[in-house]
Amino acid sequence: MPKVSIKGAQMPASPIRKLSPFAEKAKLEGKKVYHLNIGQPDIETPEVMLNAIKNIDFKVWAYTASEGTLSYRKKLAEYYNKLNYQLVHEDILVTNGGSEAITIAMQACLNPGDEIIIPEPFYANYNGFACMSDVVVKPILSHIEDGFALPAISEFEKLISPKTKAIIICNPNNPTGYLYSKEELEALKTLCLKYDLYLFSDEAYREFCYDGRNFISPMHLEGLEENVIVMDTVSKRYSACGARLGCLITKNKAVMSAALKFAQARLSPGMIPQLAGEAAVDTPNSYFEEVNKEYTLRRDLLVKRLNQMEGAFCPNPGGAFYVVARLPIDDSDAFCQWILEHFEYQNQTVMMAPATGFYSSSGAGKDEVRLAYVLNKHDLEQAMDCLEQALLSYPGRTLKISASLADQA
Amino acid sequence: MPKVSIKGAQMPASPIRKLSPFAEKAKLEGKKVYHLNIGQPDIETPEVMLNAIKNIDFKVWAYTASEGTLSYRKKLAEYYNKLNYQLVHEDILVTNGGSEAITIAMQACLNPGDEIIIPEPFYANYNGFACMSDVVVKPILSHIEDGFALPAISEFEKLISPKTKAIIICNPNNPTGYLYSKEELEALKTLCLKYDLYLFSDEAYREFCYDGRNFISPMHLEGLEENVIVMDTVSKRYSACGARLGCLITKNKAVMSAALKFAQARLSPGMIPQLAGEAAVDTPNSYFEEVNKEYTLRRDLLVKRLNQMEGAFCPNPGGAFYVVARLPIDDSDAFCQWILEHFEYQNQTVMMAPATGFYSSSGAGKDEVRLAYVLNKHDLEQAMDCLEQALLSYPGRTLKISASLADQA
Repeated sequence: MPKVSIKGAQMPASPIRKLSPFAEKAKLEGKKVYHLNIGQPDIETPEVMLNAIKNIDFKVWAYTASEGTLSYRKKLAEYYNKLNYQLVHEDILVTNGGSEAITIAMQACLNPGDEIIIPEPFYANYNGFACMSDVVVKPILSHIEDGFALPAISEFEKLISPKTKAIIICNPNNPTGYLYSKEELEALKTLCLKYDLYLFSDEAYREFCYDGRNFISPMHLEGLEENVIVMDTVSKRYSACGARLGCLITKNKAVMSAALKFAQARLSPGMIPQLAGEAAVDTPNSYFEEVNKEYTLRRDLLVKRLNQMEGAFCPNPGGAFYVVARLPIDDSDAFCQWILEHFEYQNQTVMMAPATGFYSSSGAGKDEVRLAYVLNKHDLEQAMDCLEQALLSYPGRTLKISASLADQA
Repeated sequence: MPKVSIKGAQMPASPIRKLSPFAEKAKLEGKKVYHLNIGQPDIETPEVMLNAIKNIDFKVWAYTASEGTLSYRKKLAEYYNKLNYQLVHEDILVTNGGSEAITIAMQACLNPGDEIIIPEPFYANYNGFACMSDVVVKPILSHIEDGFALPAISEFEKLISPKTKAIIICNPNNPTGYLYSKEELEALKTLCLKYDLYLFSDEAYREFCYDGRNFISPMHLEGLEENVIVMDTVSKRYSACGARLGCLITKNKAVMSAALKFAQARLSPGMIPQLAGEAAVDTPNSYFEEVNKEYTLRRDLLVKRLNQMEGAFCPNPGGAFYVVARLPIDDSDAFCQWILEHFEYQNQTVMMAPATGFYSSSGAGKDEVRLAYVLNKHDLEQAMDCLEQALLSYPGRTLKISASLADQA
């Protein structure tokens, strides 16, 4: 019997999805499970998008151009130019989700054995994409105490070797919610120019910036045009994760021309997502205003509740819809499994993502979890009640329970 | 300025799409261009599929499970079991098109430097997928004289090395249209078991078998369960190329479990294609009967016309909707460009795919082109008129024009 590949054996399982069998079991036992493990928002997809689907009038569901339809790319260029990206539609390659934009960017830019620096915790699937491309991830620790801000540039420089070819940032960040500042991006620009590195910018959460903060992209930085590759998706922007529609953006013509060959090999992105994506660009501003108001309320609720729990700490992030919280636990993988398997509060429990899967350094994140605030406020309150109670009865709790709480537990 | 990757430079351009700029130019000059270069059928997509799209009633366009929805996989299992594949839905992983099934299969089964044997001419994008996975293609020549039948097994054995891990067949074949017989598949089975090789079976054209021939899959061969990986798509079956919906099928549990990790990294296949794909399984048989009748007529017309051209030869293939024809030309790349750039007949011309891109052996296919019979009979006749005239006036013609034709030219 032929063997699976080395990659097939080494490929990491998703930390977001790997506990699913325990959640399914809990549901079969009649427990209600609050899913804070995955960034699948409950927000409705804009009507203009759904209507574009319902109103299709073609007879042959055909391939589109490998780079995406001209009409969608032109409309996307309009969207990005409103954000002052100053690009033309030729700078855009339409992809099957943001995931494909990342894999194509890695394939087009990096050789096997090349190194890529990523501040950790980071989006867990970067590990998988790097494994697929035989690229080596060099993590650089960011810290919960300063809200997971960009590590000092001197820390990046310590990691740079002749094999270093790129840096990935996710902004606003998944899993931490941290929004990088103009100054942080300018510092990265200097670094990338000094060492001739690509800057991969994953901007899946661009629309979700709170408290009046502004989103800054590396696309806004003059002189970095040849180094920047933006990896984008409509998944979160329009709550359209199931569309699998993303894009790769770069002004570097050699990269775009290599990327196009990878895109041609897989023939074309989906036709219907592109029709819907084109319509989505006309989503009224009021949609985003309302959504951001809702996410802000949810974030505030979650951060407040978490910080009220004894021994827990959660920074208040500026964007996206995730937080990474520190909990008084010995092992987040064990805890996230235990809360599904052995715990219930009023017949309810919570599914969370252990933060360990978002770190590449072994041992990091063992007392941290990632929570997605993708449920409504009522459900979030219920989930926080569960978590609070679970922390009191978890056998691996690392903190003595204070007298007042002991009564309650 | 950072450089593109070695792969990015080496990745082959698509032979099917690379002449597009010349076709565009011809159209701008007012010529009508018949597209026989690409397998984009003009056949209408079944109504049940289009209705499934128009009737969507969800509010949130959400991710599905990474392996595809349970409901679609169960329905697909029904479809395959009607063909006697004897599988369960756990043997099916839903993918973004057949292309993704091929890349995942390669990633899950093959290591960089591993060798894969493919009878040539073969589907050109296998070269691209192999390049993406750092896998080495070992081509084995099939011959136009015997209609591109499977080469002798002794020829395969000459190529087998300790690095050989898999064989790919495409059945019915793209680009040759050849349909492999039970005997040919049995011979491959013996070979795969003897050398412990994977047999990758690309079955995109399964529905298109003519003249009462039966389709046989490696899934029908007892004892080969751990070796077979089927790569499938709805693109051609339902004329739904733009759906980007395929699947990987294997009864090898280790491969499926590795494949699932690659699928998890890219999160999920599209939701709407799966809804439509599920509905498509109920497409009435009469749809396929009518489509096959139409393709048979087109094939007969094309093969007859080609063989009537002096110095041309075209086998009569048993399946798919392609033929590879030998023409009296010096260089198929030059000819296919010339006919777009410098030729017109009654203000019309033809776009074809030079066969060179379907061979991996350098120099092979220089007097061959691939033609897709995806246009109606009237258009095919017109296209053949153009080709016939073009062959008479092409400066790189390799055959003296006979007296009777000289008058005409």
